[in-house]
Amino acid sequence: MDKIIVDEEKIDELLNRSVEDIIVKEDLKARLMSGKQLRIKLGIDPTGPKIHLGRAIPLRKLREFQKLGHQAVLIVGNFTAQVGDASDKEEKRPILTRAEIDNNLSDYKSQIAKILDISKTEFVYNNDWLSKLTLNDVVELSECFTVQQMLARRNFKERYEAGKEISLREFLYPIMQGYDSVAVKADVEIGGFDQLFNVKAGRELQAHYGMAKQNILTVKMLEGTDGRKMSTSWGNSITIVDDPKTMFGKIMSLRDDLIIKYFTLCTDLSEDEVAEKKKRLEGGENPRDLKLELGLALVTIYHNDKEATLAKQSFIDTFQNGIIPEDVIVLEAEQGEELGSLLVKAEIVESKAEFKRLVEQGAVSTEDGTKIDDYKREALPEIYRVGKKRFAKVIKK
Amino acid sequence: MDKIIVDEEKIDELLNRSVEDIIVKEDLKARLMSGKQLRIKLGIDPTGPKIHLGRAIPLRKLREFQKLGHQAVLIVGNFTAQVGDASDKEEKRPILTRAEIDNNLSDYKSQIAKILDISKTEFVYNNDWLSKLTLNDVVELSECFTVQQMLARRNFKERYEAGKEISLREFLYPIMQGYDSVAVKADVEIGGFDQLFNVKAGRELQAHYGMAKQNILTVKMLEGTDGRKMSTSWGNSITIVDDPKTMFGKIMSLRDDLIIKYFTLCTDLSEDEVAEKKKRLEGGENPRDLKLELGLALVTIYHNDKEATLAKQSFIDTFQNGIIPEDVIVLEAEQGEELGSLLVKAEIVESKAEFKRLVEQGAVSTEDGTKIDDYKREALPEIYRVGKKRFAKVIKK
Repeated sequence: MDKIIVDEEKIDELLNRSVEDIIVKEDLKARLMSGKQLRIKLGIDPTGPKIHLGRAIPLRKLREFQKLGHQAVLIVGNFTAQVGDASDKEEKRPILTRAEIDNNLSDYKSQIAKILDISKTEFVYNNDWLSKLTLNDVVELSECFTVQQMLARRNFKERYEAGKEISLREFLYPIMQGYDSVAVKADVEIGGFDQLFNVKAGRELQAHYGMAKQNILTVKMLEGTDGRKMSTSWGNSITIVDDPKTMFGKIMSLRDDLIIKYFTLCTDLSEDEVAEKKKRLEGGENPRDLKLELGLALVTIYHNDKEATLAKQSFIDTFQNGIIPEDVIVLEAEQGEELGSLLVKAEIVESKAEFKRLVEQGAVSTEDGTKIDDYKREALPEIYRVGKKRFAKVIKK
Repeated sequence: MDKIIVDEEKIDELLNRSVEDIIVKEDLKARLMSGKQLRIKLGIDPTGPKIHLGRAIPLRKLREFQKLGHQAVLIVGNFTAQVGDASDKEEKRPILTRAEIDNNLSDYKSQIAKILDISKTEFVYNNDWLSKLTLNDVVELSECFTVQQMLARRNFKERYEAGKEISLREFLYPIMQGYDSVAVKADVEIGGFDQLFNVKAGRELQAHYGMAKQNILTVKMLEGTDGRKMSTSWGNSITIVDDPKTMFGKIMSLRDDLIIKYFTLCTDLSEDEVAEKKKRLEGGENPRDLKLELGLALVTIYHNDKEATLAKQSFIDTFQNGIIPEDVIVLEAEQGEELGSLLVKAEIVESKAEFKRLVEQGAVSTEDGTKIDDYKREALPEIYRVGKKRFAKVIKK
């Protein structure tokens, strides 16, 4: 077992930076100061193929606990993923097939190795205990919750009030996630900003089984590069496996008001260093310079400093002194997707009708000036100019 | 296997008398006319020690199916009784212990033998299949229902709107009852007037498993002797194991406007005979005479004609020409219960304070005129006079 590091400064940073909420903060601090090794649970719901910077935040928080000597326990939700949670969906979520889960999982470990010390991480699969629960157990567990508590949950409440269907299946999800905490004897659970309800369920069930209630730490939400919620389907997300140039380019398209948040939530810069960046920005320095530094920092974390330097140079070579702005928006195109659809989705043109009209006027061209004459053209990876001032760099997903 | 009787007149009576609702009536009639033996499911929730006339109605309906040659399948809810249903409760129901269920069950079979042909009845215990269900199964089954469907159920809706807690456990109950229908391959399910929601769950789940949906027959509600909902705790119920004199006495205290309903729902009289009774009552005949006949009929069904004649004679000897009215209200006292509490509960006095005042005024006496001088006196089995015109016959539970 690692030596437990009791460093109040580090503990305070752990308890504050990137943190949305802690239940119960004094209690968690006392446990961290006690010198006893804690078991830190983080549930992984392997439904998406790539981890974006928003999903990386709880993993990075877990890494902080690891650095203090605590035991990271990663719950691979191979049972729960088949059920589907409602946390970040407004509609019912389709049930994943076993093949889809296996496919997602195979890639997952190599991704999180970029953040966690995998050799010191306990991996457990919740199918191991959840598949053994009987109806009798479910009855006992469900007795710990009321329908009212479930419907008070923000996501359910909104859907209920909007008259949208909530499957009874979805009410079982928090129970399962809560039972995971019992099974792994979690002292702390880390959750995303939208996971507060589910992680609280663990406290109820631990109490029911006579265990000490886990503390809860939820992390802040990170917006996508355009300021909307980060979502792969909106093309505004940066994944931790993006190649260096793509990652760098996306950072350069980041909205200026998010630069400091990205430094805080996504990099290893100290709080003092982040404060310094903020001061420069507020002092009127070109946001582009700070984004160049942010891009360097992020590519260094997820690749290495050599790749980071190359990515930066490539960006400068491509855009410096050109007509194309440095913060050109980067759009990820689906296989076979039409350029028009992609630009509408990204709100660069208002409608397909507008796009068709622009094409007909010869107002859409590629980087080298070639005019687009087919408004149904596929979104091939290139830089496009739309009208006089709109640019978009299309990349493949 | 019994020969199946296809007698349209009997089938029509089965489909109409005492029937609240049928889903789907044309379908059920066609199945009964087909000459094929049907499996008729009735769930027994062994939470109460005695079967009252209201609970006897679905059993009597099942007997009608038996007489036509169909297979009665009684589900002893030894699993579900531990869970508790919300059908006839406004509050959460306590979970029964295994010992309580066993105790209830032991007596149950001898009671229902008064109604059903036990030798032709299939008894099954739902613990046999429900205890084998896993969380995985529960997830699959719960996918067939939405939270909205559950909350649309009358009982849940009322509690939800009144801000009363609904345990998530209670949402699992309809799923279990529905799965019973899958397990026993029910063609028809009989339910109480308040069971429509639960029995409909069986249709959903049978469809999910690729089976033909069961038809549903719910029976009418029978009010207690005082016109309120029949409930053992209100002392207005007649159980099928009441001794002849008690049963007869309770019938004589029946509210006049319920006489015909009792003839229809609780006796074997033909519809023509019931119509004849109704005509006499509407023609101005003393309701007492019709209640004497109803008492005779009921004691004959649950005991025998000799006991019935004796009970009638005893009633006449006790009350004829006496000051005590023939329809004296019959109250069942708990062991050690105070007379004052019992009279308040039965709404014969308004409050304990009124009872105390009446005792102090010497206005409460027993049948022979002895004045009660202790307002905390136990409710011993006797006939009591309260004030000038109020009478109550106390019996032991």
